[in-house]
Parts: sequence; structure tokens; C-alpha cells
Amino acid sequence: MKTPNPARRNEQSRRAILSAAFDLVAESGYAKLTVEAIAARAGVGKQTIYRWWPSKGAVFVDAVLAVTGDEKGHLALPDTGDLGADLRAVLRAIVDEYNDPRLDTMSRAMTIEALNDPGINTEIVERIMGPHLEATRERLRSAQRAGQVAEDADLDVAVELLYGPIYHRWMLRTAPLTHEYADTVAEFALRALRAA
Amino acid sequence: MKTPNPARRNEQSRRAILSAAFDLVAESGYAKLTVEAIAARAGVGKQTIYRWWPSKGAVFVDAVLAVTGDEKGHLALPDTGDLGADLRAVLRAIVDEYNDPRLDTMSRAMTIEALNDPGINTEIVERIMGPHLEATRERLRSAQRAGQVAEDADLDVAVELLYGPIYHRWMLRTAPLTHEYADTVAEFALRALRAA
Repeated sequence: MKTPNPARRNEQSRRAILSAAFDLVAESGYAKLTVEAIAARAGVGKQTIYRWWPSKGAVFVDAVLAVTGDEKGHLALPDTGDLGADLRAVLRAIVDEYNDPRLDTMSRAMTIEALNDPGINTEIVERIMGPHLEATRERLRSAQRAGQVAEDADLDVAVELLYGPIYHRWMLRTAPLTHEYADTVAEFALRALRAA
Repeated sequence: MKTPNPARRNEQSRRAILSAAFDLVAESGYAKLTVEAIAARAGVGKQTIYRWWPSKGAVFVDAVLAVTGDEKGHLALPDTGDLGADLRAVLRAIVDEYNDPRLDTMSRAMTIEALNDPGINTEIVERIMGPHLEATRERLRSAQRAGQVAEDADLDVAVELLYGPIYHRWMLRTAPLTHEYADTVAEFALRALRAA
């Protein structure tokens, strides 16, 4: 008889917990999420969750990272040498994420939580947004080295030029988010940033 | 003895109700706002409020419009002929609004409400954001006529280039909102939009 592998059992429980948290928020919203409900759905005890996470918010952020594939923080933007193509690709991918009903629900829940709780906002910004913004700045630094982006361009603002318009449209639901729209934003940003 | 003036009395009650709604949200957040609390603070009966507004959300949107001075929908951007100066002025004014603690609290409350309730989102977008975005497009159309903005620039996206970055930074609290920042956003937008 084989000895059970505790590391593998732990990993299975962890996956079940994250998946339960994600599904529960997608179904009923973050406000109704409880550690009890996650435990019941995942088939684990509450104390298992509290052993690994301090709060439902911490579980939730890990669940988002697991689903978006950013868990390891190894986000990178494509660098084909063609800055326009790379920016269009990333903006189209973001538009696709916002148009996915499950990710849309999750992102709105996350936004409400961040507005209600500055601690969760910090966690989301540092662990989800931050690495993505930094990966984008890294791509723009490479474009600066290649002479495609002005040397003195403020890259903290540059990333907001790329993501701010899409975020604004998504949050306020002022107009549809399409690939054509993503391309227009990329084109405007390229013009704003390019070396004179 | 003078006859009381019902129109003036109504206007006084209306002002008291809007002011009460604004103060209550600034103090305790929108979630805790009730028509009862507004009535008590304004010194009117609940039925007076329900005679004029269908819901607390409708009172709230009118309260925001009254405080931001946009009540009559007569928003306009300055048009001095110097597009850069006019955009810097409007972006600096928006930064100042977001840095005002009362307006910050109100705007975050409004955002949570819009995320929770698509009906309120529509009301906010149509009555608060919409007129402001249209006034901005109107200023950009004037710049197009003056040859300062490319004729084929998509002005729906152009307004998001101006307001999206600031909104993103304000929502996520990633960095301070300063006048210098407003000027940088205006400069990027000018470069993105200008005629070739």
C-alpha cells in the first residue's frame, strides 16, 4: 500500500479552494463570499483555509492569479521588435478578458472590494496590476533602447495611456470593447510615445 | 401677512434634500444611505422625497450634479484657441476634484453603486459623464476645424486618452495625482491627436 503524498494532497486542496472561491464569486459576487462557503464547495475544513490564508480577500486574490495564469509573477509582454504589433496583441488580449463574462464578473467584484477596502486594493495593485504594469514598462524600455519610444517619455504615464482608456470604457460601459478599438488605442499610444 | 411662496419652499426643500444626501454619503458611504436618513437630515417627510425622486440612487445622482455645478448640463470646456492650455486646465481641474476628500469619497461611493447596479451606472453615465465627454469632444471638434487635431482622429477614443489615465490612477491609487501629472497626460494626448 502506497503512503499518501502530503505535498500532492495539499496541492490538490489548494487548487480546489482557489477554484471554489473563483466560482462562488462568479456565481454570487464577492460580498456573499465566505470562508465557510469556500470550504464547503472545496470539500475541505475551514481550518485548512485559515492555515494558508489570513482572509477571504487573500484567497480571492490568489484565485484570480491562478485563473489568469499570472500566479508565478512571470508576466512578460511579447517583444518581436515590432512595438505596434506587440501592443496591439496585448490590448486585444485584455479586451478579450474583459469580454469573458466570468472574468468580467470577477473583475467587477474585485474592483468593488478594492474600493471598499484599501488593504485589498494594495494587495491587488501589488500582486496583480503591479507586475503587469512593470512588464509593460519593460517592453517600453526595450523600445526606448531601439529608438522607437522617446527617451524622456514618462513610462509610468505611458502604461496608463495604454490601459487607462480600456479601463475607463470597461468600468463605465460607455461603448463596446472590440479588437478594432484595441488597435485604435495602441495606435494613439504609439503616436504619443514615439521619438520625435 | 404674506402668503408663503410654495415654489420657493419647494426649492428650499429640494436643496436641503440634495445637501443631506451628499453629506450622508460623504460621512458614511452610499451603502448606508437611506431615504429615511435623508428625510431626517433634511427635515422633510419621506413622502416629499418620493414625490420627486423614484429612489435613493436618483437623489444621489442629483446631489452629485448639484455639488459639481453640472446641474444644468451646461458643461463646456474652455476654448482659448490654445488646445494644450485648455486641456491642461481641464485635467488639472479634474485632478483637484479627485484630491478633494469629499468628492473622492463621493466618487468612490458612486463607482461602487454603478458596479452593483447597471441602472445607476446608466444614470451616472448619461447624466454626469456623458455631458462632460460630449463637451470634451466638442472642444476637440473645434481643434479639428482649426487643423490642430487630425481630421480622422476617433474622438470617442480621444476623450478616453485624456480621462482614462487619470481615472486608472485614481481608481487604483497607483501614484499621486498632481498638476504635473495632468500636464504630462495632456502633452501625450496632444501628440497622439495632432494632425500629421
